[in-house]
Amino acid sequence: MAKNKLWGGRFKVDTSELMDEFNASLPFDIKLLKYDVKGSLAHVQMLAKQGILTKEETKKISSGLQAVKKEIEKELAAGKFDFKEAEDIHSLIEARLTAKIGEVGGKLHTGRSRNDQVALDLRLYLREETLDLRKMLLDFMQVILDLAEKHTETIMPGYTHLQRAQAITFAHHLLAYYFKLKRDYERFGDALKRINISPLGSGALAGSSFDLDREFTAKKLGFIRACKNSIDGVSDRDFVLEFLAVASNLMLHLSSLSEEVILWNSKEFSFIELADQYTTGSSIMPQKKNPDLAELVRGKTGKVIGNLNQMLLTLKGLPLAYNKDLQEDKEGLFASVETLKIILKLYPEMLKTMKVKKKEMQKAAAKGFLNATELADFLAVNNIPFRKAHQIVGKAVILAAQKEKELEDLQKSDWEEIFDSDLKEELKVDFEKLKEKLKVETAVNSHSTLGGPAFKESQSIIQKERSLLASKK
Amino acid sequence: MAKNKLWGGRFKVDTSELMDEFNASLPFDIKLLKYDVKGSLAHVQMLAKQGILTKEETKKISSGLQAVKKEIEKELAAGKFDFKEAEDIHSLIEARLTAKIGEVGGKLHTGRSRNDQVALDLRLYLREETLDLRKMLLDFMQVILDLAEKHTETIMPGYTHLQRAQAITFAHHLLAYYFKLKRDYERFGDALKRINISPLGSGALAGSSFDLDREFTAKKLGFIRACKNSIDGVSDRDFVLEFLAVASNLMLHLSSLSEEVILWNSKEFSFIELADQYTTGSSIMPQKKNPDLAELVRGKTGKVIGNLNQMLLTLKGLPLAYNKDLQEDKEGLFASVETLKIILKLYPEMLKTMKVKKKEMQKAAAKGFLNATELADFLAVNNIPFRKAHQIVGKAVILAAQKEKELEDLQKSDWEEIFDSDLKEELKVDFEKLKEKLKVETAVNSHSTLGGPAFKESQSIIQKERSLLASKK
Amino acid sequence: MAKNKLWGGRFKVDTSELMDEFNASLPFDIKLLKYDVKGSLAHVQMLAKQGILTKEETKKISSGLQAVKKEIEKELAAGKFDFKEAEDIHSLIEARLTAKIGEVGGKLHTGRSRNDQVALDLRLYLREETLDLRKMLLDFMQVILDLAEKHTETIMPGYTHLQRAQAITFAHHLLAYYFKLKRDYERFGDALKRINISPLGSGALAGSSFDLDREFTAKKLGFIRACKNSIDGVSDRDFVLEFLAVASNLMLHLSSLSEEVILWNSKEFSFIELADQYTTGSSIMPQKKNPDLAELVRGKTGKVIGNLNQMLLTLKGLPLAYNKDLQEDKEGLFASVETLKIILKLYPEMLKTMKVKKKEMQKAAAKGFLNATELADFLAVNNIPFRKAHQIVGKAVILAAQKEKELEDLQKSDWEEIFDSDLKEELKVDFEKLKEKLKVETAVNSHSTLGGPAFKESQSIIQKERSLLASKK
Amino acid sequence: MAKNKLWGGRFKVDTSELMDEFNASLPFDIKLLKYDVKGSLAHVQMLAKQGILTKEETKKISSGLQAVKKEIEKELAAGKFDFKEAEDIHSLIEARLTAKIGEVGGKLHTGRSRNDQVALDLRLYLREETLDLRKMLLDFMQVILDLAEKHTETIMPGYTHLQRAQAITFAHHLLAYYFKLKRDYERFGDALKRINISPLGSGALAGSSFDLDREFTAKKLGFIRACKNSIDGVSDRDFVLEFLAVASNLMLHLSSLSEEVILWNSKEFSFIELADQYTTGSSIMPQKKNPDLAELVRGKTGKVIGNLNQMLLTLKGLPLAYNKDLQEDKEGLFASVETLKIILKLYPEMLKTMKVKKKEMQKAAAKGFLNATELADFLAVNNIPFRKAHQIVGKAVILAAQKEKELEDLQKSDWEEIFDSDLKEELKVDFEKLKEKLKVETAVNSHSTLGGPAFKESQSIIQKERSLLASKK
Repeated sequence: MAKNKLWGGRFKVDTSELMDEFNASLPFDIKLLKYDVKGSLAHVQMLAKQGILTKEETKKISSGLQAVKKEIEKELAAGKFDFKEAEDIHSLIEARLTAKIGEVGGKLHTGRSRNDQVALDLRLYLREETLDLRKMLLDFMQVILDLAEKHTETIMPGYTHLQRAQAITFAHHLLAYYFKLKRDYERFGDALKRINISPLGSGALAGSSFDLDREFTAKKLGFIRACKNSIDGVSDRDFVLEFLAVASNLMLHLSSLSEEVILWNSKEFSFIELADQYTTGSSIMPQKKNPDLAELVRGKTGKVIGNLNQMLLTLKGLPLAYNKDLQEDKEGLFASVETLKIILKLYPEMLKTMKVKKKEMQKAAAKGFLNATELADFLAVNNIPFRKAHQIVGKAVILAAQKEKELEDLQKSDWEEIFDSDLKEELKVDFEKLKEKLKVETAVNSHSTLGGPAFKESQSIIQKERSLLASKK
Repeated sequence: MAKNKLWGGRFKVDTSELMDEFNASLPFDIKLLKYDVKGSLAHVQMLAKQGILTKEETKKISSGLQAVKKEIEKELAAGKFDFKEAEDIHSLIEARLTAKIGEVGGKLHTGRSRNDQVALDLRLYLREETLDLRKMLLDFMQVILDLAEKHTETIMPGYTHLQRAQAITFAHHLLAYYFKLKRDYERFGDALKRINISPLGSGALAGSSFDLDREFTAKKLGFIRACKNSIDGVSDRDFVLEFLAVASNLMLHLSSLSEEVILWNSKEFSFIELADQYTTGSSIMPQKKNPDLAELVRGKTGKVIGNLNQMLLTLKGLPLAYNKDLQEDKEGLFASVETLKIILKLYPEMLKTMKVKKKEMQKAAAKGFLNATELADFLAVNNIPFRKAHQIVGKAVILAAQKEKELEDLQKSDWEEIFDSDLKEELKVDFEKLKEKLKVETAVNSHSTLGGPAFKESQSIIQKERSLLASKK
Repeated sequence: MAKNKLWGGRFKVDTSELMDEFNASLPFDIKLLKYDVKGSLAHVQMLAKQGILTKEETKKISSGLQAVKKEIEKELAAGKFDFKEAEDIHSLIEARLTAKIGEVGGKLHTGRSRNDQVALDLRLYLREETLDLRKMLLDFMQVILDLAEKHTETIMPGYTHLQRAQAITFAHHLLAYYFKLKRDYERFGDALKRINISPLGSGALAGSSFDLDREFTAKKLGFIRACKNSIDGVSDRDFVLEFLAVASNLMLHLSSLSEEVILWNSKEFSFIELADQYTTGSSIMPQKKNPDLAELVRGKTGKVIGNLNQMLLTLKGLPLAYNKDLQEDKEGLFASVETLKIILKLYPEMLKTMKVKKKEMQKAAAKGFLNATELADFLAVNNIPFRKAHQIVGKAVILAAQKEKELEDLQKSDWEEIFDSDLKEELKVDFEKLKEKLKVETAVNSHSTLGGPAFKESQSIIQKERSLLASKK
Repeated sequence: MAKNKLWGGRFKVDTSELMDEFNASLPFDIKLLKYDVKGSLAHVQMLAKQGILTKEETKKISSGLQAVKKEIEKELAAGKFDFKEAEDIHSLIEARLTAKIGEVGGKLHTGRSRNDQVALDLRLYLREETLDLRKMLLDFMQVILDLAEKHTETIMPGYTHLQRAQAITFAHHLLAYYFKLKRDYERFGDALKRINISPLGSGALAGSSFDLDREFTAKKLGFIRACKNSIDGVSDRDFVLEFLAVASNLMLHLSSLSEEVILWNSKEFSFIELADQYTTGSSIMPQKKNPDLAELVRGKTGKVIGNLNQMLLTLKGLPLAYNKDLQEDKEGLFASVETLKIILKLYPEMLKTMKVKKKEMQKAAAKGFLNATELADFLAVNNIPFRKAHQIVGKAVILAAQKEKELEDLQKSDWEEIFDSDLKEELKVDFEKLKEKLKVETAVNSHSTLGGPAFKESQSIIQKERSLLASKK
């Protein structure tokens, strides 16, 4: 809260302190501590291998780095770390190292610059987080599959324009989200191909006159390879942008699912009831369940996309190679990563614990003439020309609406009135067959095209995806 | 750093704790502490006036609120405040108040809801910050005027397409920014008209059945008036959007100025030299001055606009009245306000302390045929038809370029060659007059139209704006 | 479709043609025709007044300009205008003028540049459109008032978190939008103060050496005043940004209203029925009414905000004065203006023609314990401490839910069970009064605070706003 | 221009016409003509294969479709097509087909809906355009390689913070962009994996009760496979988003390159001279070369990112399956595709035709102590501890600056002054070696790490990438 107080009134601190604060990145890049040390250790090993550092120096620096890391972690855990100790994580570690092991600490920076170092740290960080997020996505997808499996026969209305359109099942609906998330999973995978490239050895912008083995450090740190241009190495932030774009897409999917969860949880839809822990109520209206988690996720979609925009704006029109503007690549990214992680943990729990009101869903699917297209298809199969078929269905719906019935409840006499004059002879309607066909369950199951709502089709898709998921874990 | 550790590895905390954390706003809305108490005090006074609270109750609650506020402030200052104590600032204060003064504390919420309360707090906060920012903008504008006044006769090239185009003065250039900032100042003023409206008394969304005097609290809290629809009162976040839009425009102005500061500070331009405290150098290249502040400001333009986007996205498609999505109205706003405040403090200092290299500027203005339009105007005044005048100027520039001279250095014989054939008779060129006219200083001063670069014009503008500024302080 | 064909396959046109096409703005800035001519006419009059043009020249140029304008308008109307005739509207008019009246046409550009000319045209255009949009907004607001007036007693549920929360009226709900639009109206008004400033006379960037009377042209063209810095005059695009920000806010309001219209029009809500012309159906499902207009408006919110973003990005980091990047200030603006105009024309019609299903609304308001807060308030007024009051209401709601009753339908015996033990003596409940208080209509009317849902309060607000609107027309 | 006239004044058209116009997509989705027909032909073949259409019907519909396509193309070419003929491309073709071949035309829509049809068309369109763009990117990359090859020995200053930092070569700088574009190329490739999935057979949202062979049409149309969920099939617009995100990243790269081109083309830098066709000048300042193309590209970065934002906003919070909001997926996408195509055609031409001023570049690289790091490295190799080495370099730079010399021009006596006291003994400086090492060319070539500026390193990279490119064509 120190910050809060500082700016509370008009400014009382002097300018140079302010400038230090404005310039500093330690309050957020402390998150890079372990990656910075990891990168330095690999760099030192390489310098040793190349004969640039002696064995002795290498050992001193390496154990010094480990000690510094532990020290800082301890201070952080105890809440005793002073975030004003240094300008950034790199100078913090360097200062502490030199204090600990003497001037030899300075040799750590042989053939390296803060420009390639920060790019390295950020890539190591984002690689780990992306891998984590992918695992969490797989868990999420698994939860959806499990839930879908329970509901392959839970009939509900499918909507277009938020109007009931055709009957589907809850499994079928959930699978739509499954495949959306699967694409997010793939996109994170594609992004990884470009995150996982080593910039180490790019120097300030022009590589180094030391005989560095860039492929050695790249391999050591688990990268696919070293980047092939040092100016690109220090200026490239595509990997941040790409991550944020993929994250934004994922958030859009969750914003849609959240919109639906909010709708379903409303009194008007009443398709689900969320578990208490993901809602808030009011002590005086205990029946009310505000879908807080879903609303927050929908709201936070703005945050992640806002961070994407921040990065797009910051990068626009920057000349090569490194500019201080690039320091703005971290805060939004870190905030987005953390937002995603907490959401990917909570959201599946919300889905697992919600009560699905099958009867309400089925009831809704049975009302609103969702089988009108079945009737049209029935007529088409019976060789009624399109235009006439449409007229007949239209008449049937209007008659049913007047009689406050559904299509399947129309009587023989009703149908005779509808088919009327010109069609009577052409069509020998088998009313029993028609009635059967118009049943919502029959309708759903007749839609057995690949990826359609038929019970068996969903079951089959679930089985295939289940083994696919198993193979990825 | 607690947060940092929590999410460091895969999740180890249990879901309900996570959900609490996800739901909680205390870590950021603590900033609303003083506004929340202020609003509550006014509400209590009104309840007393309306006979809803007794004198005794009023006194108890009021002094309790003051005490709670002091308590929390003390804990914050000492770094001992537990940000997990409550879900949000409102429940924190309520809980502490009831703990302190007993059940009567609950009466504070008579006729009030968290929905109108949080809208109130945010408006009180933003009003104060906007007023502060306006003051800082005036100070900034003053610094620009002062600097301009010193440079009404400092000639520099004016650019279009980053090509030297016509000679101007540094004062004239600075005044362009002065007027841009003046519009920002006005826009913040216009935004205030809509920030400064009281939502208190809107309740959860439907006002209250208690006999509240909404205009009383509005006046008490310094608002222009109470809002006229309770649903609007709890759902309106226009004022946040409007502030962020105005802030974004201001940042765009500063991004342009920063771009120019960076250019001017480059070896290639060498128009200015930034003071050490606003640059970073390198120990091995002490002549290098990285314009960090300007670069960061240009970079942070993305942050403020990113926050505007976040809000635009969050609000899109929300039904009335209050939705939890609206909790996302704070973090981006707070971050933007703080970013602006630190920038508005530092930027003028950077301008004040930079060294303006008059000679370099003047030298640049003298090269590149910036007086070509003067020549054209001279010909036009001497009644040469447009098309021919243009041809002549073109020829003169080409000849001068070949001879590596500037236009004013062309000899009589050169001019005779240029005017050649068909014009010789028409134009009796007074070469002395022409030479005089082509001098960069003459050129600048001949541009004496309103708002033009002529020395006197800038001086006159500066005087007028100076008194205007004085009147606003 | 010429364009379409050109790019249909791989490129077959040669580069210089392509470059011309890329560079050209005539296909969109043709919209500035009348403003360009208007500005030129004022400029010519000023040149005459200042003795820079003779009477003869002035007359020739003025009538030439009028003729050129008519000519082009005729060609446009006949679909015979060739959009490749010139690079932009300014050179088109200049070329035609010179072709028509000879070299004297060139004198039109005395003391003027395309840089101040295009800024002038855009301001004249946007001033007219903003004034138009404000009129349309007033019409829209009128329609909302009219509709609200019919429904001051139409009770509906008020929602928070899309959960039924408290009873309100449809008028009360509509008035929330009325006040949102009113702010948009005001914001457009504030924007006008900065749109309506004349840049004419700023020249390329440095004013002019001709003795121009900038205030004369400013007045002539209806501007508030001339801008006070020529560099600002040609580089300022704040007015475009500000317009787009205000437009984005308006679109957000309409996106919310559209979200609600879509919800209300769903089978689940069934609060309204949209008129056929603003929906699409399907021939086979005649009962289905897809709320196309509302969906498109919600969707087009993205377009207008996208255009705002385009402008923010384009302006970021541009040095002064004019850069070609600024040519990108038109297309998005024009598209946004046209989108707003068609929406502001259609939307009120949709509202006027929709059928409001009062009974369905009222029925929904009667279910879901929306009067739980009334009960709590009743207890508070009867001096039950807050905590206990909340417990009692909670118990009452649970009991009622179990019995599938609403609160107002509970029997004396039920209440006795609820008040139970400890409260029995304290509270002598007047069950008749309580029952009356719990009636939805009583509840609504008891919320008679300023801006609340009570019938009379809405009626009073409507009356006041109606006369305010009348005064603005 | 019809549109232009319609909205010119206040609205004069009646509402239903306006609604039709607002609703219509034909003015832009006409671009989908060929894809719509292509998709329909495949659908018909499948229906025939499945025995749903007779051979006769299939033939009639197929040749009818071809005829309709030709007809419309002819009208478009002749400028005689009426864009108000139908609401959208699908209904246009259907109506014309039925008019041509009678009621059997209606059978084309057996088992199909506009929802899966439009998704199909858009994917076919975007696949073709993405493939085209990738080819153009390869051409662009080739041009960069060719240009780089010519300049592997053209020394120029490398910049950080727009301050000269270390010497590099123009080839090395260009290669940074080469690798940036290569990532864009890869990203478009990754996007294709998700664009190239067939939604056909998803119906309105629930597949079909006809026995469709979705894999057959997918294969027929060159798709990788059919999508596996029909609701996802009609609601998925990820592929549009992903394309726009990749396009935005590409534009950011070009915005940076453009910024540099503009800088390099300035009088101050003078590193290049753009060819006339990509600049505009002024008749009176023939030496001026406004870099219009580069400026426009930088400006249009806003447009493409604005379109990405539009799509992000439009998709936020949409429930499944199809909503009319999705109609907004086309205009921004089409505009972005066209913008990219024209830029990718023109930009390489601009680079190919620009004059590279080697001498100016080299001269700039020789000034500003860009070899200060070489000196530091030299000292480090000579075992001077880091801190001291830095002090020495600092002193050398200051001394050189005072004497207005470069480091390599310092005399033995200067160095002796610098090394002074405490170092004299430790370091036996070989001044000849040092002088050699400080030469800019030596410095560049000593930076021979992978991806560094050394002449041979760039040559080797160019060779490898050249064969890689060859393999892709």
